[in-house]
Amino acid sequence: MPIVECVPNVSEGRRREVVESIVGAVSAVPGVRLLDRSSDSAHNRSVLTMAGEPVAMKAAVLALFEVAVRTIDLRSHRGEHPRLGAVDVVPFVPIEGVTMAECVALARETASDIASRFEVPVFLYEAAAMTPARTNLEDIRRGEFEGLAEKMAAPAWAPDFGPSRPHPTAGATVVGARMPLIAFNINLATDRLDVARRIAAAIRHSSGGFRYVKAMGIALEDRGLVQVSINLTNYEQTPIFRVFEAVRREASRYGVHVLESEIIGLVPAAALVGAAEYFLQIARFSADQVLETRLRGGAG
Amino acid sequence: MPIVECVPNVSEGRRREVVESIVGAVSAVPGVRLLDRSSDSAHNRSVLTMAGEPVAMKAAVLALFEVAVRTIDLRSHRGEHPRLGAVDVVPFVPIEGVTMAECVALARETASDIASRFEVPVFLYEAAAMTPARTNLEDIRRGEFEGLAEKMAAPAWAPDFGPSRPHPTAGATVVGARMPLIAFNINLATDRLDVARRIAAAIRHSSGGFRYVKAMGIALEDRGLVQVSINLTNYEQTPIFRVFEAVRREASRYGVHVLESEIIGLVPAAALVGAAEYFLQIARFSADQVLETRLRGGAG
Repeated sequence: MPIVECVPNVSEGRRREVVESIVGAVSAVPGVRLLDRSSDSAHNRSVLTMAGEPVAMKAAVLALFEVAVRTIDLRSHRGEHPRLGAVDVVPFVPIEGVTMAECVALARETASDIASRFEVPVFLYEAAAMTPARTNLEDIRRGEFEGLAEKMAAPAWAPDFGPSRPHPTAGATVVGARMPLIAFNINLATDRLDVARRIAAAIRHSSGGFRYVKAMGIALEDRGLVQVSINLTNYEQTPIFRVFEAVRREASRYGVHVLESEIIGLVPAAALVGAAEYFLQIARFSADQVLETRLRGGAG
Repeated sequence: MPIVECVPNVSEGRRREVVESIVGAVSAVPGVRLLDRSSDSAHNRSVLTMAGEPVAMKAAVLALFEVAVRTIDLRSHRGEHPRLGAVDVVPFVPIEGVTMAECVALARETASDIASRFEVPVFLYEAAAMTPARTNLEDIRRGEFEGLAEKMAAPAWAPDFGPSRPHPTAGATVVGARMPLIAFNINLATDRLDVARRIAAAIRHSSGGFRYVKAMGIALEDRGLVQVSINLTNYEQTPIFRVFEAVRREASRYGVHVLESEIIGLVPAAALVGAAEYFLQIARFSADQVLETRLRGGAG
């Protein structure tokens, strides 16, 4: 049974009854497992994490649109987080028995249905992008809902599916396929923010570091510590253990120790098993030596 | 759904048709997953690894006895591995949603059924043992099939279930409950067997080391290396990373490096996740942050 994860970001984090009806709509779709949900009032945004077979994920996204387009009006929406639409972003993530190419196909099918059913323009991003200029979510979202009509007037920003102007209240939606994200923070036993910032700069892609790392240095003022806050966007290509060891090495150059790390939210088992293999120097290891993997897929 | 693993060891590793009919009998039991099987001709012994709900595991063990008692005659059995019975050892192992106490209860029920249906005396061992003297398999098996009638004549070796003398052809069986075993070998970049032996002695329980470690030093002559060959009998109490780090430290005392390690057969995901947590210094981590765990047990 192929399993896809889908993590819709919805532009409503304050009106409880709206969030509940959205959650209720996706939960009612057969075969959908809601793994996590969080609403942020300052961001005025909610993030659902759900998983299931591809067909169930697509049905859940359409059910979510049904409610969101009816109840969210971006003309009066305020929040700290940048957003383009009532349903802002919908990434599909391959988890088990499914390829990235299949998630791309699922994203495009779902985008097509969204556009035709709800008359919401859709941009494809990340692995599902039709052009390199649309790979990055930030580029698509720049200008936000308020600047969207003007942006879409340029031929370069014609949507991949749907009408060539924003939906009046629901704006536009960005749909795509990507690897699982790992939110990984490393806390340093120092209060020197410059050290955390230098290390973040050393490891992140945008300033010459690892290809699939986004990072910034921040102060944890209540604890008197600093943190290198990391997003790993592809743990297969840029593994967590390599990033951790790089941070440790960079920190030691300033005479600073790693106090601890933390994983925020969910992490694929393979990312941790890979770290165990690395540090324990396990040679010739195969994923189906993991008892639970054998149990799920086992013969007989 | 509670999952128990069961790893019956059968005293037949040469006659292919006998092994096949034993494998066929357990595989035919509904709800049984055969995860692994291996037969060793020198040992003249086969080991099956199967998993499923407790009731399926018990039914599979009884189906296995049905064939083994009929087809194996220990009076003519020869092999390098010590053995007491046609079905030599039957450990039950808690895997998921089941406690050790429940595995102990399952072992005792199954033992009682074996004794009454097949007139085979049964000794309980490890966590299922009724007395400390029977905790260790080696103590129960000492004297083997050939010495069994004499051994059982002493009141101290009355079986826990069944007749007070061996079954004429099937001997006796040892049934119990234990934690998953991890077979973990560490290869050293040296050919000095004395180093591997000293490290093994330092880490194993029997000579003052970790409580749940069995270990020996052996030469890998074809590779010009030595190996510390380790059995971890309780990875929760004596974790794999602590043993690995101890071996590395001891080796460095002789100026020797760890070349690599290897895991033989299956390993519970939790043992590797625990190692990742340790080496990555992950604080405040919970098992249900593992995506796959959430998927299996997930809400809604």
